[in-house]
Amino acid sequence: MATCSASAVMEAALRNTVSHKALCLVNGAFGRRWFQMARANGIPADSLHFEPGKPIDPEVVGHHLAKNRYDVVTFVHVETSTGVQNPLEAVAAVVRLHPDTLLLVDAVSSLLTTELDFDALKLDFCLTASQKGLALPPGLAIFAVSERLLERARRIRHRGYYLDFLRFRDYALVRETPNTPAVNLLYALETRLSSLRRIGIGAEIRRCAEMAELCRSWAKKRFSLFPDEKYAANSVTVVRCPPSFSVEKLNLFLAEHGFRISDGYGDLKGRTFRISHMGAVVKSEISSLISLIDQFLAS
Amino acid sequence: MATCSASAVMEAALRNTVSHKALCLVNGAFGRRWFQMARANGIPADSLHFEPGKPIDPEVVGHHLAKNRYDVVTFVHVETSTGVQNPLEAVAAVVRLHPDTLLLVDAVSSLLTTELDFDALKLDFCLTASQKGLALPPGLAIFAVSERLLERARRIRHRGYYLDFLRFRDYALVRETPNTPAVNLLYALETRLSSLRRIGIGAEIRRCAEMAELCRSWAKKRFSLFPDEKYAANSVTVVRCPPSFSVEKLNLFLAEHGFRISDGYGDLKGRTFRISHMGAVVKSEISSLISLIDQFLAS
Repeated sequence: MATCSASAVMEAALRNTVSHKALCLVNGAFGRRWFQMARANGIPADSLHFEPGKPIDPEVVGHHLAKNRYDVVTFVHVETSTGVQNPLEAVAAVVRLHPDTLLLVDAVSSLLTTELDFDALKLDFCLTASQKGLALPPGLAIFAVSERLLERARRIRHRGYYLDFLRFRDYALVRETPNTPAVNLLYALETRLSSLRRIGIGAEIRRCAEMAELCRSWAKKRFSLFPDEKYAANSVTVVRCPPSFSVEKLNLFLAEHGFRISDGYGDLKGRTFRISHMGAVVKSEISSLISLIDQFLAS
Repeated sequence: MATCSASAVMEAALRNTVSHKALCLVNGAFGRRWFQMARANGIPADSLHFEPGKPIDPEVVGHHLAKNRYDVVTFVHVETSTGVQNPLEAVAAVVRLHPDTLLLVDAVSSLLTTELDFDALKLDFCLTASQKGLALPPGLAIFAVSERLLERARRIRHRGYYLDFLRFRDYALVRETPNTPAVNLLYALETRLSSLRRIGIGAEIRRCAEMAELCRSWAKKRFSLFPDEKYAANSVTVVRCPPSFSVEKLNLFLAEHGFRISDGYGDLKGRTFRISHMGAVVKSEISSLISLIDQFLAS
């Protein structure tokens, strides 16, 4: 657990593991971010692109790995910019065929919205942020690393200081953090974890899936889904809207009722809008939001 | 303003500015940290050491700079581990004789406890953290950079991603942050800044100076000061204690009354203890603490 946004720890994961080269799987803005991070740190990296809205294809990844040698593969579980949940299990199976290649997973927007078993999938790195499924204020990044990754890190000379994973491990073993942490958020995290233990992770995932289903079936009637429906995420629905549609005007109307939705991310702005259904969001809010958008469309 | 501990931004300041070599001025644990950070990032650096408890000597710095070329000099204003306030004005004057050398200042524990004029001293980088003089929960690092520094950063190829100062500037110009910030702390910061505007920065500095004076005159009577008294900081008093003295036992006694003090930092543990008098601390707490320690000594 580190005091920073998720991006800082994604960057650190690359700095702690890559000496030869990284492979970044890209089908949206967050997949691309791993690649930009590698470049900003002078870390050699290739990117393998898939169409936005479509999932990462494990077969293509397999073919690519058969022909090239990589220290790590970076993977975004739920690509928030397009609403796609990428097939983690299948990609992990393909990467696991290459024993020297670590699998780094951005689960920022997927944790607690869908199944994710770090150990069963033999992941090497997985990360989330406090403000998504965990429903806390932003400011903490929470991550897990494998023993394999720590062994790799030992051989990397310039891992950096603040997010040196070996320092984090040493401090974690004595239940400390290497630097002054965001103490207030730690208290919030403790409370949320107790409540999750009570609710059950399975129940929390089902709750998100129900909100997602409600949102998707509505979006298909009124607009259309941006992502391939088979791969639509439980955490966020990305709705494709006609060019004439103004998200700005919709938000002015919604604001009168205390609501607000996100415009499309990056180059999808104006062509899509996004409705989140995870963490702090509850079903009655999704129902109210949907009927407000219906009112807006009828007006 | 970045969501992280101060250390992350100290490290970033080196990564954004050094291509040839850094000079780290060291008279305690935080001075040494800059040097460790340079090494952890593969950044060439020299360290110039001064005795702990004594201030950094501007004349020695001047001689050293006359014989060597550095991209930056790193400087800790208040060295929290020893309670020394280093002579910023004099060191800045010496560094300013070398137009290609930037001056990076860690003001984590000095801001709002003593005068600090970024513009008048022509500093290039200055940083504090939310939990010291600003009296907020930890989790935000607040920093200023010079135009000169940004020009330098443009020529540095691998500045990193999360704390690339040029990205921060681009976002700051549109009143945004490059990544999701710790929003709750931003509200707290806003409130604290309004209150500081009302109180006045001068009054806040005088308040810390008064608490420091109270603490120092008591410490000289009962124990002795660790730092050279002429350079004793207004933010923290580091008290030298006899080897027979147990800070642990003192803290057990203090805990009964809701108080707790810090043991010495790093290798000064057991030989010193530290009393903070800045930010959220008020004079009546210092008075109560002092009389409790007197009770402990008498028992």
